[in-house]
Amino acid sequence: MPDRPAENQPPTALLLIDVINHFEYPDSDKLLAEALPIAPRIATLKRRARAAGLPVIYVNDNFGQWRSDASKVLAYCLRPDSPSSRFVEQVRPDDEDYFVLKPMHSGFFQTPLELLLKYLGISTVILAGIATNSCIQYTAHDAKMRNFRIFVPPDCSAARTRDEHDQAIQHMQAMASADITPSPGLPLEQLVHA
Amino acid sequence: MPDRPAENQPPTALLLIDVINHFEYPDSDKLLAEALPIAPRIATLKRRARAAGLPVIYVNDNFGQWRSDASKVLAYCLRPDSPSSRFVEQVRPDDEDYFVLKPMHSGFFQTPLELLLKYLGISTVILAGIATNSCIQYTAHDAKMRNFRIFVPPDCSAARTRDEHDQAIQHMQAMASADITPSPGLPLEQLVHA
Amino acid sequence: MPDRPAENQPPTALLLIDVINHFEYPDSDKLLAEALPIAPRIATLKRRARAAGLPVIYVNDNFGQWRSDASKVLAYCLRPDSPSSRFVEQVRPDDEDYFVLKPMHSGFFQTPLELLLKYLGISTVILAGIATNSCIQYTAHDAKMRNFRIFVPPDCSAARTRDEHDQAIQHMQAMASADITPSPGLPLEQLVHA
Amino acid sequence: MPDRPAENQPPTALLLIDVINHFEYPDSDKLLAEALPIAPRIATLKRRARAAGLPVIYVNDNFGQWRSDASKVLAYCLRPDSPSSRFVEQVRPDDEDYFVLKPMHSGFFQTPLELLLKYLGISTVILAGIATNSCIQYTAHDAKMRNFRIFVPPDCSAARTRDEHDQAIQHMQAMASADITPSPGLPLEQLVHA
Repeated sequence: MPDRPAENQPPTALLLIDVINHFEYPDSDKLLAEALPIAPRIATLKRRARAAGLPVIYVNDNFGQWRSDASKVLAYCLRPDSPSSRFVEQVRPDDEDYFVLKPMHSGFFQTPLELLLKYLGISTVILAGIATNSCIQYTAHDAKMRNFRIFVPPDCSAARTRDEHDQAIQHMQAMASADITPSPGLPLEQLVHA
Repeated sequence: MPDRPAENQPPTALLLIDVINHFEYPDSDKLLAEALPIAPRIATLKRRARAAGLPVIYVNDNFGQWRSDASKVLAYCLRPDSPSSRFVEQVRPDDEDYFVLKPMHSGFFQTPLELLLKYLGISTVILAGIATNSCIQYTAHDAKMRNFRIFVPPDCSAARTRDEHDQAIQHMQAMASADITPSPGLPLEQLVHA
Repeated sequence: MPDRPAENQPPTALLLIDVINHFEYPDSDKLLAEALPIAPRIATLKRRARAAGLPVIYVNDNFGQWRSDASKVLAYCLRPDSPSSRFVEQVRPDDEDYFVLKPMHSGFFQTPLELLLKYLGISTVILAGIATNSCIQYTAHDAKMRNFRIFVPPDCSAARTRDEHDQAIQHMQAMASADITPSPGLPLEQLVHA
Repeated sequence: MPDRPAENQPPTALLLIDVINHFEYPDSDKLLAEALPIAPRIATLKRRARAAGLPVIYVNDNFGQWRSDASKVLAYCLRPDSPSSRFVEQVRPDDEDYFVLKPMHSGFFQTPLELLLKYLGISTVILAGIATNSCIQYTAHDAKMRNFRIFVPPDCSAARTRDEHDQAIQHMQAMASADITPSPGLPLEQLVHA
């Protein structure tokens, strides 16, 4: 079972938060409308991260499905003709990705994420996905308290409204020391050895 | 995605620890020899727990396979003609079981186990599996500090040697207040409403 | 050493966050100016909580003073003629209060707060203190993920600017289900048996 | 409030576990009898650690005294003519020591110990104190899962019986990879830069 990290492990990981999403809650049509434009940008960011050798970690809600594993959650969200499939099909994981199921908002709460990041030698995280003012903000707080350097490219996350998104981005910049450079400007190659 | 707990949720869960095991470490032939006799007893205990309405939770090492989910670990351990398959085929999970992947010894360390037990309304845990003096003992310690009532039926766990097994059982009785009644004497039906 | 909780333990606790504060960071004159008006309101809320039988827990930063205990932090913040003393003297703890030193923003991160609340039988927390958009918001997030009911009376917390305060209050209402009734309207007597 | 770690922080810390002890539980006369001989050895080990520049951290139970800080627990255990004072007076903390109050068995459970060790740059811990098969063993397990190198000098800890002590020492050697060299042989000066 060979699954060891490479010797020159990069210090940065891309965390895709709740992108395997069923969009089944109140106002989720609003959220989906805001989310659709970020899907291709997340896909591009993921391709660039992969090319630069950065690990990509899906940090995803189990949506209360305690009996499910990642593949079942994914299959549910990709049901043909479901609204969620339009978003999810653009950002689906592949065999090289890591996958952490989270039971609550923060990716660090009652999950092995912290240990996985330690195992991979990661000290910087790039947060992308949905929703900016909920799971991304909760995760940013927990990353800050664990002393991670944080990037939150504002063009790669979404909330139900633009105002909520903007306020959350500003809050993470001010209170979690997040760098909010948009994704096209992220120097991924340099982050490998930063 | 309906996966809510039943209204009269039982206060006891059966935790099967590292029973999906590859038996690939030093001295694992010794461990496997000690483990084989407990497999049918664990299978019987699981059937009785299921019949009594107790949730069964597989709490299993990811064996360093951070890219894997439960089904991949299971498939690996069930490879035809592998030594591990002789043990694992007797205790394989089914669709009604819960599954928690743990990255280290204790089932509570960097996993959602505590939250799942809270969600299910569980206050008593029955620990079975391998190894008695390692992952079971670590998990018992963490369960004790979280105020769970603990059962460790000594006929349903194993270690590399009988001495290590016995000492660990005694230790959990003395230091984690574990009830060490053998599995045939466990009053599973009463534990539902204890 | 008799220090057991009373039999009819109330389900609500008042958490005073970083009110023992040295106000020694950038822009802390702004924060102090915003904080001074809330000091007498926190004092009143504490008196009412005490009268209603609710436990009061000081959840306070150790400000990097790992060798210090609560009394040393308090003495430092009460130095005669220090700016901080004007705030802190109005909200100082007494022998009936509980005290939890926290090393980072959230009161729950690497502290015994969760265990203390469990020990006291608490399911509802009232958050007051400073700063609204930092330690109070981080603590609210962690309380939400642990399933506590949350009150954040907006007249009993402060941030460097009124905008940051208001946005944080709105965020906690929207994303941590916080009740934001101002302190005079809090039904403390009913919260005892809520 | 200057309390920063020195630049060349040593990678090893001495953890004194529950040495500020009231010895007020069942069979505590037995425990005290076993503990008294280790007190002068712990005092010597602490002096050597101090001389070598290693931080000394008291990791101590709050004994259910949630309203107390370290100084109150210490004062209680040092009451004149109390049995506990005979032990505690030999190992009392001074102003250079760190102090972490723990609510349960393990020094890592719901305490800031992990963060303090990270802040001090510590990767190796020496465990001493009482009881070998309880709080020291629980703490060793948690240190192991957090990847610390562990020393447990067997002449610097005690349990109610010699057998329980010996078994716990062997268990920590086997299951937590603990080095069990007796204290006179510990190369403290080398551990600074190990």
